Amino acid sequence: MTLRMGRVIGIKPSGIERYKDLHANPWPDTVEELKNRNIQNFSIFLRAPENLLFSYWEYTGSNFEEDFAKTKESPRTQAWWDLTAPLQQPLASRKADEWWSPMERVFFAE
Amino acid sequence: MTLRMGRVIGIKPSGIERYKDLHANPWPDTVEELKNRNIQNFSIFLRAPENLLFSYWEYTGSNFEEDFAKTKESPRTQAWWDLTAPLQQPLASRKADEWWSPMERVFFAE
Repeated sequence: MTLRMGRVIGIKPSGIERYKDLHANPWPDTVEELKNRNIQNFSIFLRAPENLLFSYWEYTGSNFEEDFAKTKESPRTQAWWDLTAPLQQPLASRKADEWWSPMERVFFAE
Repeated sequence: MTLRMGRVIGIKPSGIERYKDLHANPWPDTVEELKNRNIQNFSIFLRAPENLLFSYWEYTGSNFEEDFAKTKESPRTQAWWDLTAPLQQPLASRKADEWWSPMERVFFAE
């Protein structure tokens, strides 16, 4: 069963151009890592001047927590996040173990 | 070519429960209208306490503006929006002809 997941985070105004540049040319191996963890059809959207990023992906595996834990351990993914995290501004309401904040899906139409 | 589109809007705290109830049981004919206009894989996500709605859909037709103009003219869609619009809080930065605010896609991985 496909799990459709949405997450939101802020972006620093000073980080927008760099963030866009990085994501226009992502590292092939970090993208491959996502695929290997059953994450697909992954888009990130930006809204200015509110400076919000929204991400949407579809998880097609059977244990998201387990797969995402593996992604977190990937050195290349960690190196990518070392570049992108300083550009972002997590929501004040996020939980201690969150970076992006999860959203609740309230509607779906095939 | 599939066009992946993201949009954002606020929701009034007082409107959240009603909005969720409506979208848990959407009108079949308004959902059908979307399909007829080549809009599919449509999710809406909610984030509280920021009270943001994010919508994601995939447009598979050849002229989104034309298709969406037809949807806007649908009496049933208008009746649905009469129910949902008072629950929402458009962004202050939106353009005069916008309700939901469009976002820019900055990343995609298949």
